[in-house]
Amino acid sequence: MFSNFIRRYSTSNNKFSINLNELIIEKTKTPLPKITDKSKLVFGKQFSDHMIEVPWTAENGWGAPKISGYHNLSIPPSASVFHYALECFEGMKAYKDEKGQIRLFRPMENMKRFENSAKRICLPTFDKEAVVELIKKLVTIDKDWIPEGKGYSLYLRPTLIATQNSLGVGASNSALMFVIASPVGPYYPEGFKPVRLIADDQYVRAWAGGSGAFKLGSNYAPTIFPQIEAAKKGYSQVLWLLNDYVTEVGTMNMFVLWKNNDGELELITPPLHDGTILPGITRDSILSLARQWGEFKVSEKNFTMSELAKAIKEGRVKEAFGAGTAAIVSPIKSISYKGEEYPIPIDESIQCGQLTKRVSDKILAIQYGEVESDWSVVV
Amino acid sequence: MFSNFIRRYSTSNNKFSINLNELIIEKTKTPLPKITDKSKLVFGKQFSDHMIEVPWTAENGWGAPKISGYHNLSIPPSASVFHYALECFEGMKAYKDEKGQIRLFRPMENMKRFENSAKRICLPTFDKEAVVELIKKLVTIDKDWIPEGKGYSLYLRPTLIATQNSLGVGASNSALMFVIASPVGPYYPEGFKPVRLIADDQYVRAWAGGSGAFKLGSNYAPTIFPQIEAAKKGYSQVLWLLNDYVTEVGTMNMFVLWKNNDGELELITPPLHDGTILPGITRDSILSLARQWGEFKVSEKNFTMSELAKAIKEGRVKEAFGAGTAAIVSPIKSISYKGEEYPIPIDESIQCGQLTKRVSDKILAIQYGEVESDWSVVV
Repeated sequence: MFSNFIRRYSTSNNKFSINLNELIIEKTKTPLPKITDKSKLVFGKQFSDHMIEVPWTAENGWGAPKISGYHNLSIPPSASVFHYALECFEGMKAYKDEKGQIRLFRPMENMKRFENSAKRICLPTFDKEAVVELIKKLVTIDKDWIPEGKGYSLYLRPTLIATQNSLGVGASNSALMFVIASPVGPYYPEGFKPVRLIADDQYVRAWAGGSGAFKLGSNYAPTIFPQIEAAKKGYSQVLWLLNDYVTEVGTMNMFVLWKNNDGELELITPPLHDGTILPGITRDSILSLARQWGEFKVSEKNFTMSELAKAIKEGRVKEAFGAGTAAIVSPIKSISYKGEEYPIPIDESIQCGQLTKRVSDKILAIQYGEVESDWSVVV
Repeated sequence: MFSNFIRRYSTSNNKFSINLNELIIEKTKTPLPKITDKSKLVFGKQFSDHMIEVPWTAENGWGAPKISGYHNLSIPPSASVFHYALECFEGMKAYKDEKGQIRLFRPMENMKRFENSAKRICLPTFDKEAVVELIKKLVTIDKDWIPEGKGYSLYLRPTLIATQNSLGVGASNSALMFVIASPVGPYYPEGFKPVRLIADDQYVRAWAGGSGAFKLGSNYAPTIFPQIEAAKKGYSQVLWLLNDYVTEVGTMNMFVLWKNNDGELELITPPLHDGTILPGITRDSILSLARQWGEFKVSEKNFTMSELAKAIKEGRVKEAFGAGTAAIVSPIKSISYKGEEYPIPIDESIQCGQLTKRVSDKILAIQYGEVESDWSVVV
């Protein structure tokens, strides 16, 4: 009786805790076909043998975590994830280093952002260390699914969805966290391919008072139509503007290396304070590295597309790139703005700028354990 | 922007057709328990015995429609509906009139909006008449689930979700349309209960260049947290502002009856042209009725919360109400704005304004077939 009480009491007060001792592992009896030709890997199309699931209810908190074969989810058609987009996710990777060790890159940063996203849509908080441990377990079980070689990795997709069986618009009383894994190749298998952007003044990705700073599914749905429109016009990505301020590029953070109005060499990216910018982990890593290097000014500050266009015309823009987990960096060679093309310098020999390359090389070296760094976590 | 968008988007083939001759009906062998005490009905918690499903693939278009027992959906964990909120829906009702006939209210208006929502997130268009026919079939099969009595109805939830088994951010190559049905009681079982609103200057529901004009799941997720915050402060609903302009109230359109600056009696609601306002079917019905009555000026025009607050102080605001499918109209008795309470007149005998009551009575009479109207469609 007493122990029952203790258990009930502690559950109701620690509903965020995920009990790793309760982990159920059911290895698949029907392994999925692996792609042996690494050049055939397509982002997010193939999935590894196993997945993590952790159910949650408002009444009992997090249930027993489970790792089992990749399988369809059985969800009521009334679940709030299908109607009100109560869903958030993360993107992270597991890498195999030269010694064959598995590594994660700043996994706790993903977990912090994941939890912040969950809070924004009234989904439960959770024990972040426990989820990292579950992910370590998953990548260990599916280690043969991590393709070898620099640039190759096992993409991990932690996801949290609301499963409440009700159409009322409100906080969900049940949820499911799951993690699936997809083997992926380098974003640029044959070296960088700098992209052409179109600065969009018709569609807006995020706005002050919205939810652009969180990794919610709802930030993505409205961006697909504008992205397809841009592609039809021959542009790879949309450069998102808000009242002419540059915000993000496609699904990445935006960086520019320029000579500012005071003649200083400066790396700039939009700041986080107004809630329109996703706090990218690659973004943060680049800012940290550039500040460590201390060779130029590093600023998180707002800048308009008009300012950027003027700087390009005056030859003050040295490099521009997007930053995100999928590509690390994505060099930009031109921006179309109000019907005019603004070309950005590209070093032909490396198909990007010098800083873009340096950032990419450094982060890759950390991710694959070639240099010592706290950011790389050996599993 | 809204009309431009609709004009620009065109279907490239006739894969939109849904073949009613292929309809499969599998009646449930395990009927769900019905709630016999109508007062116990809770919005969207109980579901009728059957549901509609129509699958779609980019390759083959719409597949055979099916009506079968209410059941969980089996969806891959990688499906884009779980990650990028590729989902849209409608809200409509089936009513039982005094003769026992089943009626729908302006169903084609729901279908047009449903299709516009689908287009906005690159989901397929469809044969709107065919979906209305499927809905008629469903409500006929589940006719015993339509509770009798004025104000009672079977709430219908057409939904379209992206089911593509891939994590790439892009248009989905497969989708599922489904319709579930939930018996509901009157929004105000004991007469109107006018609500207190808080005008929110911290959170913004929709903005120009976003997707507020479409019934997408992604418009709802970010509103739940602000709604809960408002409830904690003792307010029923959030009055959504955009740069001080009044946009919507909770999940409803906003109406105000006032004496305008020129001394004219005027019914106002924000206009649709900037793409931030959901084109509500109740909204449209109220505008049509008010224009038919021709007793006061009817305007779709922008107004700020400051203007509204000033008008309330000057005693020029006669009534204010939200409008939507769930409640038809929801009378407002006060608005909190910048720390001050702005009371709106309520006729104590009817717990709302005279126009609010008249609109409600008229639409109810049409929905339950008490007066002749093209808006009410007998099944």
